[in-house]
Amino acid sequence: MKAVTLHGAGDVRVVDREDPRIVEPTDAVIRLAATCICGSDLWPYRGAEPADGLLMGHEYVGVVEEIGADVRTLEVGDFVVGSFVISDNTCEICRAGYQSRCVHAEFVHGGIGTQAERARIPYADGTLVTTPGPPDDDQVPSLLAASDVLGTGWFAAVAAEAGPGKTVAVVGDGAVGLLGVLAARELGAERIIAMSRHADRQALARDFGATDIVTERGDEGVAKVKELTGGLGAHSVIEAVGTQESMMQAIRATRPGGHVGYVGVSHDVELPGDELFFSGVHLHGGPAPVRRFLPDLIDRIWKREIDPGRVFDLELPLAEAAQGYRAMDERRAIKVLLRP
Amino acid sequence: MKAVTLHGAGDVRVVDREDPRIVEPTDAVIRLAATCICGSDLWPYRGAEPADGLLMGHEYVGVVEEIGADVRTLEVGDFVVGSFVISDNTCEICRAGYQSRCVHAEFVHGGIGTQAERARIPYADGTLVTTPGPPDDDQVPSLLAASDVLGTGWFAAVAAEAGPGKTVAVVGDGAVGLLGVLAARELGAERIIAMSRHADRQALARDFGATDIVTERGDEGVAKVKELTGGLGAHSVIEAVGTQESMMQAIRATRPGGHVGYVGVSHDVELPGDELFFSGVHLHGGPAPVRRFLPDLIDRIWKREIDPGRVFDLELPLAEAAQGYRAMDERRAIKVLLRP
Repeated sequence: MKAVTLHGAGDVRVVDREDPRIVEPTDAVIRLAATCICGSDLWPYRGAEPADGLLMGHEYVGVVEEIGADVRTLEVGDFVVGSFVISDNTCEICRAGYQSRCVHAEFVHGGIGTQAERARIPYADGTLVTTPGPPDDDQVPSLLAASDVLGTGWFAAVAAEAGPGKTVAVVGDGAVGLLGVLAARELGAERIIAMSRHADRQALARDFGATDIVTERGDEGVAKVKELTGGLGAHSVIEAVGTQESMMQAIRATRPGGHVGYVGVSHDVELPGDELFFSGVHLHGGPAPVRRFLPDLIDRIWKREIDPGRVFDLELPLAEAAQGYRAMDERRAIKVLLRP
Repeated sequence: MKAVTLHGAGDVRVVDREDPRIVEPTDAVIRLAATCICGSDLWPYRGAEPADGLLMGHEYVGVVEEIGADVRTLEVGDFVVGSFVISDNTCEICRAGYQSRCVHAEFVHGGIGTQAERARIPYADGTLVTTPGPPDDDQVPSLLAASDVLGTGWFAAVAAEAGPGKTVAVVGDGAVGLLGVLAARELGAERIIAMSRHADRQALARDFGATDIVTERGDEGVAKVKELTGGLGAHSVIEAVGTQESMMQAIRATRPGGHVGYVGVSHDVELPGDELFFSGVHLHGGPAPVRRFLPDLIDRIWKREIDPGRVFDLELPLAEAAQGYRAMDERRAIKVLLRP
């Protein structure tokens, strides 16, 4: 089968690999219906993380082709959505809703890789969620978004306690930030401030529910959010970048007692203890336990209540993955869908 | 009147000052029934913060002697307990329960000073809470504890989401940590791990509800907490020290998805973003909004359900304040009560 591998900065290849097969009785093998490139894939693509034949891709929807002897909830032919972290969904941590930190957690990125025609999914019962039936073609991008960017934006909004009566600010206008806007709207937020300097992303943010756009960044962005919130700051702030500047922007834009939900993968961030202490904010985030939200997200997509697939603004065959990486790296695309 | 002032490291003086008087119509003047020395007073006492005639003390109970024209909820003669931060208790931040960050917040420490015979309390209606009547003498230490150390330990336990079914670990065995143990017990925690190396404090921790004592610190302490919690870490961790080591100990001892409530005043702490991100913990803390909890805490003390006053193991006349500072600095006393 064909699969995408990374061989150092900028060196994306589509290679032939042996088809995956069942190894453990709890495994399933799926045939990918669609996969995509994540903003986090750009870290190794840009050389910020080592890559020597790294198996790429951690977002996926597809059809079950084979199941191990112990798989109970899936049948061959089922259409499934999975999270970017393998989880048994039965351990104490999973039951508390933190499947991304399951005692059997394994990142799909690197070890498995779903920018491929097929993939072996361990702990298939715990990791994969079936759709009510085969989806319509136009629902596939939204279901694929649920696998990570929607699930992550949703977790950020939940961590930030977005909800009725709340003003939510969103730092970051990538796919996760934009879907954080959508999640905040779905959770009932009263006012949603999207922080973005790009006209196309501003437009999508508005479509997803943003009521205000702030183009300023850093302390100027903070001042603007305070100006919009009677000097107090937002109740809830979603951080979807992962840099020192974006984290401090998020913390400073939050009112005392408010909540920061941060999901941008942290790179070279050091939080000053005294400022955090006196800020009085709640801080929660990390790799999103997407599995917690998948049944609800699939349901909303199935009923066509939400259309998170709109973050995909470029679709390519898997064979042209390298072109997709370039488009995202150069910010010509928000998010690239790959068809195996 | 007599008042305690600090004039550089180790230089505690009891000086004569003019009696305070009503300045704003929302002020009250109280006569102190008791006051005390806080662990946080040791930072300037040890020279870590500047002090040149600094008015000391921020914990207080006493009797209302005079009220301004706009004070509505207090009468002369009322016995009152106040928080270490002035609050109007009506602004949006106060109504959300974050009175320590009230839009009119002012720290009692420094500007007001309650290690004194009398004190002027601004925003008296919002800051002071009356007891149901004059307390018995033996209830005064517990009511005084509510003013800060109990209220702060309680906030830490609430921030850490201590409650039924939860295992709570407490980092720090000062008065706040010990009362964090008591708060966790009152909130229904199933298991409470006190981290302490001092026999007298261990004994008090057990009396307050600790079920386990861990004497190890740092990563060894973390390993011990994990050993006691099936390898997962505690659900809830109270941090009541404020150093880099104690913060990392708290974060690392918490399971993914668990809660750290941190109230140790942060000194020279830098939190590594990547470790925090992948920890998946909730982090919340800062100067405790004691005012939020005062009515409930006074009620529990009044009914003799809790005896937080036991943290006071040395009582001195106000005139001997310097001796009290020395005793706490040398860890000969957990907490010193001063009688004006």
